[in-house]
Amino acid sequence: MEYVDIDSNESAYAYPLLVKHLLHTPLAHAPDQEIVYRGETRLTYRTMRERIARLANGLTRLGAEKGTTVAVMDWDSHRYLECYFAIPMMGAVLQTVNVRLSPAEIAYTINHAGAQILMLHTDFLPVVDAMKDQLETVHTFIWIDDEGSEASAHSIPFASEYEHMLAASEPSYDFPDFDENTRATTFYTTGTTGLPKGVYFSHRQLVLHTITGMAALASPVSGQRFHRGDVYMPITPMFHVHAWGMPYIATVLGVKQVYPGRYVPDQLVKLVRDEGVTFSHCVGTILHMLLNCGEAKTVDLSRWKVVIGGGALPQGLARAALDRGIDIFAGYGMSETCPLLSLAQLKPGSETLDIDEQVNLRCKTGLPVPLVDLRIVNEEGADVPHDGKASGEIVVRAPWLTQGYLKNPGASAELWDGGYLHTQDIASIAPNGYLQITDRIKDVIKSGGEWVSSLEIESLISQHPGVSEVAVIGIKDEKWGERPVALVVLKPQFVPLVSEDEIRNHVRAFSETGQISKYAVPQIVRIVDQLEKTSVGKLNKKRLREQFA
Amino acid sequence: MEYVDIDSNESAYAYPLLVKHLLHTPLAHAPDQEIVYRGETRLTYRTMRERIARLANGLTRLGAEKGTTVAVMDWDSHRYLECYFAIPMMGAVLQTVNVRLSPAEIAYTINHAGAQILMLHTDFLPVVDAMKDQLETVHTFIWIDDEGSEASAHSIPFASEYEHMLAASEPSYDFPDFDENTRATTFYTTGTTGLPKGVYFSHRQLVLHTITGMAALASPVSGQRFHRGDVYMPITPMFHVHAWGMPYIATVLGVKQVYPGRYVPDQLVKLVRDEGVTFSHCVGTILHMLLNCGEAKTVDLSRWKVVIGGGALPQGLARAALDRGIDIFAGYGMSETCPLLSLAQLKPGSETLDIDEQVNLRCKTGLPVPLVDLRIVNEEGADVPHDGKASGEIVVRAPWLTQGYLKNPGASAELWDGGYLHTQDIASIAPNGYLQITDRIKDVIKSGGEWVSSLEIESLISQHPGVSEVAVIGIKDEKWGERPVALVVLKPQFVPLVSEDEIRNHVRAFSETGQISKYAVPQIVRIVDQLEKTSVGKLNKKRLREQFA
Repeated sequence: MEYVDIDSNESAYAYPLLVKHLLHTPLAHAPDQEIVYRGETRLTYRTMRERIARLANGLTRLGAEKGTTVAVMDWDSHRYLECYFAIPMMGAVLQTVNVRLSPAEIAYTINHAGAQILMLHTDFLPVVDAMKDQLETVHTFIWIDDEGSEASAHSIPFASEYEHMLAASEPSYDFPDFDENTRATTFYTTGTTGLPKGVYFSHRQLVLHTITGMAALASPVSGQRFHRGDVYMPITPMFHVHAWGMPYIATVLGVKQVYPGRYVPDQLVKLVRDEGVTFSHCVGTILHMLLNCGEAKTVDLSRWKVVIGGGALPQGLARAALDRGIDIFAGYGMSETCPLLSLAQLKPGSETLDIDEQVNLRCKTGLPVPLVDLRIVNEEGADVPHDGKASGEIVVRAPWLTQGYLKNPGASAELWDGGYLHTQDIASIAPNGYLQITDRIKDVIKSGGEWVSSLEIESLISQHPGVSEVAVIGIKDEKWGERPVALVVLKPQFVPLVSEDEIRNHVRAFSETGQISKYAVPQIVRIVDQLEKTSVGKLNKKRLREQFA
Repeated sequence: MEYVDIDSNESAYAYPLLVKHLLHTPLAHAPDQEIVYRGETRLTYRTMRERIARLANGLTRLGAEKGTTVAVMDWDSHRYLECYFAIPMMGAVLQTVNVRLSPAEIAYTINHAGAQILMLHTDFLPVVDAMKDQLETVHTFIWIDDEGSEASAHSIPFASEYEHMLAASEPSYDFPDFDENTRATTFYTTGTTGLPKGVYFSHRQLVLHTITGMAALASPVSGQRFHRGDVYMPITPMFHVHAWGMPYIATVLGVKQVYPGRYVPDQLVKLVRDEGVTFSHCVGTILHMLLNCGEAKTVDLSRWKVVIGGGALPQGLARAALDRGIDIFAGYGMSETCPLLSLAQLKPGSETLDIDEQVNLRCKTGLPVPLVDLRIVNEEGADVPHDGKASGEIVVRAPWLTQGYLKNPGASAELWDGGYLHTQDIASIAPNGYLQITDRIKDVIKSGGEWVSSLEIESLISQHPGVSEVAVIGIKDEKWGERPVALVVLKPQFVPLVSEDEIRNHVRAFSETGQISKYAVPQIVRIVDQLEKTSVGKLNKKRLREQFA
């Protein structure tokens, strides 16, 4: 019997999934829609399309070609959005540089990615000055200046300034077709130890992440939606996982986009008010700062929808946001996953739940977005029950996960195992389908054949009125494998009053009501003066485990 | 400089776009959601997933394997939905047989596709009986019986009955990974002349059509939306372009789905009422029948959203539907395009337009959906202005267009030209981005260097109170290339009263106000007794042109 596979690449009908194809419909539907930078610079989608062509022509003149990596150091701006399109659309690779790293780390990532062109905003002149002699592959520097000054004599030999380069370039460029698996972007993730690791994404991956993310974000019945009538402003840096991919989604939706430059809480809140922003995303810490800044006290935030990611959404923050009328919910993903994996959306019918039940659902890790094959598995790789209790590592397949770490086969082999990307997050799945992360795999305690969440015990201990800080770690135990140990810092006035036994009994009470397993009750509680932290202020459990062992 | 393309196929991370991946999230979010057949049979998504595995096992036992074409003749049913998934997921090809064709034509399409297995509903026993001796490739027949009767002695040698086959098969099946460009479905289109032509779609194409269609349908601000809270019922046959791909979208959304069996107007309206249907799609003629059936008079249809396709949405029908509270709008596509190309959605802000302006927009051909690269071009292939006046042929690229016609390289070469699929539809695009089809390319009249729409002149002539029917055709003209000729049938009582000159003057008045070009005024008007029609009741312009020449 005849059997014909369809050839997607060879025939006249080939349609590779390329970033350029995201622009067809916004330009058809909404060419006059606005893109705003800091409330000052305003342009239309039509103008942006021309500037994308000018940028591609300017970069070509400076030597960029297919495969060239172009590194960018800028705050959130219309220019960065132009780079999101122009650089991949040429067949070049956009490196979004994490400007929060040290100069030496930044130099490392640029060298490691092999970037040949570096575009940098005026604010990063001192950083680049400090490390420019360490740059091994960059041959061309382009200045990004908000005032559009001439790239005059400077310790960095700029070839051009961004606006001058665009002004001197033609507004049309015939962006070619090429293989959809061509690399489009790269950037570096940082762990608590070791050098930053590069992840990378192809055109195909960005297009599939964009369209599927749009489908997921648009499809709730009401609320928690990103739709064509929204006004979008990122508050996750554009160097971090393409601002969670949202600028691409916003562009396909054809919505007004607001880019805030450097994040200053009062300024951000003013932009929400003045530009009518209705959809944003950020980490919980930033939203907390925004809600508590001076400007926030008088601004109506009740039309604002905010996705929280980069860590759990604390229930207290969710409640504070809901009290202000903010339609808040959690999202989950990581640099390696482009990032979107799940969203804590309410199901049809649950919009009418009372506030406590809503807070509970909105703070979940979420429901997977379409095409994401998400499982929770035990150490043997077998699925654990979706009963809301059993926990396992989250492993995923999706069409937009990094293939590995750049030039790092060892770490890549750990990331991918058995055809699934291993997130190192431990979670349970409730019968209603909601995923809930309970721990990182390196912090989970394996006791009596069960996985005990250090985060959950910490949360319970922190509810004791005398406790200031707490870390729960696992220590080796002949009989149980591991047992939990709690290290507790008391509030000064409670130091004479609270004993280690009292803390243990406090936890045991939760065990006796069945809320936690008996294996979760710490065998040892130690009251200590302080807890070792990492450079970014997180508990350094690795060091704590070493100290206690 | 190192330059690495990402290899999408070879590595551990490969994620081919396969139909099976559409099931991950509905099963995670909504396993207990209902699928209803004729208001009688009810099952859940979880049960459907088991039945999909049983169907794959049953078909495997009967000899189906990768590449086998399985033809299906059924009314709209939960079984058909199961076939949409199980057959492609096995690596086999689903042929959706157009049951409205003649027995000889049906036999032709089954032979041409090389189907080896034919599944047929009881209602089609006479049809298959009449042509079974003509079937050259079918080796196995499977009976679909609503009563689930045993496949007993019959003139057709059934190997099994659908429900019996499922009951005898295991509820799990390890659906394999394979190349996303593997053919998933095929079906035949019929023109006014010639044999039916086969189109075909791959897994990749179905997945991209589904996710992008979901993104497009979900993203309006309010209204005209297909979202997670809807209840879905198709009223476009499932054999016709996968019921416009909507059952796949409905499944990913995880909504309640209602399959009506054979279309009976009163029954359909009852299902809308009893099952709470909120989203459907059909051709205009069917909606007209539904609105005028007995049952419709008493049923509240104000929660119902209906997409009209398969031809223009007449303004009168749109108004009648809006009067009943139905959220109606047009969609555009064709068998060759899987089908979705555009949707006549209201832009943000235009929800508040008055009824006349809304009707006007809702009846447009629409705004292209994401990833669709849609152009209107003149005979030289150059873009014509988007001024709402200039017209050209619609040519498109999208990731879900048929590669060609099955085993018909001649017709395929005409379909694809210059990297674009040629729709043979003539349209204009307004400055606000809305596409409006004005004619079919074979019916357009090229006069004085302009393209004159025969449909537009017919519409104007039909507004004359004495006119019963009208056909406008082009005839050769030395000076102008072509000139329009109007063939008019008068209402009996007007025959003595209306002259050919009066009709011409009626049209000229529109030319004088600038509504139409002077080239659109028919040079000749002929009053005739009747107009030649095709077998399906459309004007046979080919014959009329021959007669008049």
